[in-house]
Amino acid sequence: MKDIHTIQQYVLTHIPLSGAMGVQVEEATPNKVVLSAPLAPNINHRDTVFGGSASALCILSAWTLVHFRLEGEGYGCRVVIQNNTMAYDRPIPEGFKAVSILDDEAKWEKFTRILSSRKKARIVLNASLECGGKKAGLFEGTLVAAMRSASPE
Amino acid sequence: MKDIHTIQQYVLTHIPLSGAMGVQVEEATPNKVVLSAPLAPNINHRDTVFGGSASALCILSAWTLVHFRLEGEGYGCRVVIQNNTMAYDRPIPEGFKAVSILDDEAKWEKFTRILSSRKKARIVLNASLECGGKKAGLFEGTLVAAMRSASPE
Repeated sequence: MKDIHTIQQYVLTHIPLSGAMGVQVEEATPNKVVLSAPLAPNINHRDTVFGGSASALCILSAWTLVHFRLEGEGYGCRVVIQNNTMAYDRPIPEGFKAVSILDDEAKWEKFTRILSSRKKARIVLNASLECGGKKAGLFEGTLVAAMRSASPE
Repeated sequence: MKDIHTIQQYVLTHIPLSGAMGVQVEEATPNKVVLSAPLAPNINHRDTVFGGSASALCILSAWTLVHFRLEGEGYGCRVVIQNNTMAYDRPIPEGFKAVSILDDEAKWEKFTRILSSRKKARIVLNASLECGGKKAGLFEGTLVAAMRSASPE
């Protein structure tokens, strides 16, 4: 997996809304991606985080995990989100984080096995929305990876 | 319901991410809100619309309908999103719209009746994501309204 500065630069360059949101890549390993964003650019009429920003940060954390882990494993893929659910459990009055964790290696192995054989595969990932160390919401999304070429090498 | 210029100004002032996204209020009636956004500030690594932007525009369209319709009917409320689902049916390679429609007056009446009696009520709204006149995705969200004061007058 690339280092967080390279990932940060990629995300800012290719998804400009992440710059407007003030997204920072805090942690990026094959099993965990943590993104953060400050309140100010993501504030709403209630002086808490806009649901659209919370949702976008979660989508971005799950996408970052799948995109950069696949890239690190040598797959030339495009990764897009197919669908998601999002629960907003409480108002967020300050900076917030989206934490996407993949703790099921068997799920990843099945995903990449299908991707290798069928050139396309889906994976379901969760991301928790956090504020001040407490859970503030939960995202679950299905991401689809499709090979750019017939050979993933 | 307020006119679209007033609503546009409110949204831009209170939810700054809408400015970064280039959100325009195209239509706003008690039964329909249409918001649009251009591709450029919402682009992703695939040169199509970032899922987070698509999701945010849908959330904003449903919120705008409920917030401004309640305000127009004299309710002093705060309106927040509680949860949502979002399906991204196809890539969006250009400007896009979120169209939130409330075509069930009985649903609205039940919502405001409960809001008046219990000071808090939920309503489920859909918004379709559109591009070039075609459907590109579907949002369904639950919004919660809570009275600011005991009397809605």
